[in-house]
Amino acid sequence: MTTQGQVITCKAAVAWEANKPLVIEDVQVAPPQAGEVRVKILFAALCHTDAYTLSGKDPEGLFPCILGHEAAGIVESVGEGVTEVQPGDHVIPCYQAECRECKFCKSGKTNLCGKVRSATGVGVMLNDRGSRFSIDGKPIYHFMGTSTFSQYTVVHDVSVAKIHPQAPLEKVCLLGCGVPTGNLSLCFITGTLGLGAVWNTAKVESGSIVAIFGLGTVGLAVAEGAKTAGASRIIGVDIDNKKFDIAKNFGVTEFVNPKDHDKPIQQVIVDLTDGGVDYSFECIGNVSIMRAALECCHKGWGTSVIVGVAASGQEISTRPFQLVTGRVWKGTAFGGFKSRSQVPWLVEKYMNKEIKVDEYITHNMTLEEINEGFDLLHEGGCLRCVLSLHA
Amino acid sequence: MTTQGQVITCKAAVAWEANKPLVIEDVQVAPPQAGEVRVKILFAALCHTDAYTLSGKDPEGLFPCILGHEAAGIVESVGEGVTEVQPGDHVIPCYQAECRECKFCKSGKTNLCGKVRSATGVGVMLNDRGSRFSIDGKPIYHFMGTSTFSQYTVVHDVSVAKIHPQAPLEKVCLLGCGVPTGNLSLCFITGTLGLGAVWNTAKVESGSIVAIFGLGTVGLAVAEGAKTAGASRIIGVDIDNKKFDIAKNFGVTEFVNPKDHDKPIQQVIVDLTDGGVDYSFECIGNVSIMRAALECCHKGWGTSVIVGVAASGQEISTRPFQLVTGRVWKGTAFGGFKSRSQVPWLVEKYMNKEIKVDEYITHNMTLEEINEGFDLLHEGGCLRCVLSLHA
Repeated sequence: MTTQGQVITCKAAVAWEANKPLVIEDVQVAPPQAGEVRVKILFAALCHTDAYTLSGKDPEGLFPCILGHEAAGIVESVGEGVTEVQPGDHVIPCYQAECRECKFCKSGKTNLCGKVRSATGVGVMLNDRGSRFSIDGKPIYHFMGTSTFSQYTVVHDVSVAKIHPQAPLEKVCLLGCGVPTGNLSLCFITGTLGLGAVWNTAKVESGSIVAIFGLGTVGLAVAEGAKTAGASRIIGVDIDNKKFDIAKNFGVTEFVNPKDHDKPIQQVIVDLTDGGVDYSFECIGNVSIMRAALECCHKGWGTSVIVGVAASGQEISTRPFQLVTGRVWKGTAFGGFKSRSQVPWLVEKYMNKEIKVDEYITHNMTLEEINEGFDLLHEGGCLRCVLSLHA
Repeated sequence: MTTQGQVITCKAAVAWEANKPLVIEDVQVAPPQAGEVRVKILFAALCHTDAYTLSGKDPEGLFPCILGHEAAGIVESVGEGVTEVQPGDHVIPCYQAECRECKFCKSGKTNLCGKVRSATGVGVMLNDRGSRFSIDGKPIYHFMGTSTFSQYTVVHDVSVAKIHPQAPLEKVCLLGCGVPTGNLSLCFITGTLGLGAVWNTAKVESGSIVAIFGLGTVGLAVAEGAKTAGASRIIGVDIDNKKFDIAKNFGVTEFVNPKDHDKPIQQVIVDLTDGGVDYSFECIGNVSIMRAALECCHKGWGTSVIVGVAASGQEISTRPFQLVTGRVWKGTAFGGFKSRSQVPWLVEKYMNKEIKVDEYITHNMTLEEINEGFDLLHEGGCLRCVLSLHA
């Protein structure tokens, strides 16, 4: 029995309103329209960005919606004009699109494709500015152009990366994290982001001294990227001593716990490094730490990259003297990777054992256990929880 | 009669205390010690940094002192171990030193030489941490390692650039502006800084859209640099409509006066440029404008360079989202030029008519008229006033 062209009824975790548990519902998923792809999601990971929007703190969050944006699956059917994927292809939905036609894609300077964000930023599809999800005729908003907490989802063709058919979907689903460019809530976890922050945004050179603020998933991925790039010292900064042991496995060479020092942490690091680090990465989302990360950089050349995402409305600040004396302040979105072009390449790097993914997965659950998964995420001790959607 | 090895008594403008007119005094200038050079200053320009320190707002300003840091002259004598210049050489004292030996000079990434700043930052010479200036035995502090409002001054050998002997000193004195790296008061005017901000710090490409906030001397030099780099649109932003006519001569193609708009100026510029500019330069020293300059940059790649210098204690701020979505915030000191290596090259570029200098000089005066010159600087209508010290 083919499902192509038919509405599919399947299970999805629906966020009916802010700050309430998700509810597993029977959802109707409409067929893909022109330029769209319907994907059977096999595995999806939970991310702090999903939790942030669910909390109600994201001013652009829309309810009811289907959250989720870090997943892997198989194409079920494609809409009119879709040529780059076909049913059966293994894919990773990417919340950062790549159309290869817009001003952003053509610039060669950024991965922030602008083609579909006017739709994905407000929870709909570009073609008719409507949703493909509904329950008894009532539409349910999309989220980040991905909505992967559903057994089937519909995404724009520019937002889907075709990957190697032998890649283990239960692992590589973690490589799908990106950034919704029209939306104030930014994604900030996964190895993709961390590796890209080091390789694409900071361009860390061999021999560099690096400081990483926050040793969660992103911080560990930054450490891994810095190690690969040949950094000579990788200083991990975290207030939780328990994180130090695991961080060593990802390349961190020295640990600093701000609680052990009376001086501001930037001064501690400047003193440790004879003037400051060459590169720093803020992987927490705390604006005070973003300032510390900038100010612990070496005068003349130190570059600080903001990877973490601050709560809405918060601001970073520093004395302009910090920049005039040669420090550079930048940020990274989706690690600077072009999604459709580079996610397949990352998948192959993983398959060749050049980058870690398995090590970030601390828990496996079913879709029905999703609320428990979010509790784990909040409690700490959980890097990534991967849901099996058809278990 | 030789003066070498002798104390020279000459005229200098002494700043006895903050916020009082300078006084022309007979000053004793000691011979240069090891690693020092005594220079007969022929021409010196007045800069806002001198005025800032004189005003008392610079928390690191020391009195009594001899101000001035933008000048040209001839070497009178050299101390022990000085090999790169000799008596008779035409030179520009540079307040940004270049020793070619320290961590900064060797990095290849910055011009912020660290060799003498521990001394120049506190108004003394490195060799004995004393001053070479005195009046009746009472020491007078140096300023920025240059103190060019004196007919003779003593500078560190790493702070003096030997230039082409045929260069007109009354013009090229403007190419000597830099930054005292250990000091919160930064210099921010002259063509050197503006050109360097475009060429070295921002690396503006052909076809770029550029916005320049503040059309004073630095802003005009940025415009000139952007034009040379092939920028397609150069948007000048200033609240004084009178500045627009002269700015055209320096390459500005469009004018925006924030007073003509109700919307924030960053939004006005984003609207004018289909999403923002490729490069922006803040040439005023106003922290609110620094924010506007960053936020008018195009998402994904826009780079904002802080060239102006804010008052002590003021801070810049923005939402981190601005950086996470691809904008870059940086600053420039002495335009990124290496002083001893590149000032001579700038002088030759001027002699070959590749860069403007004459156009910035609006007034010529004598040392005795220095207070009148500062009045002109404050009134506007004056870009640069050049003093003749031996008229």
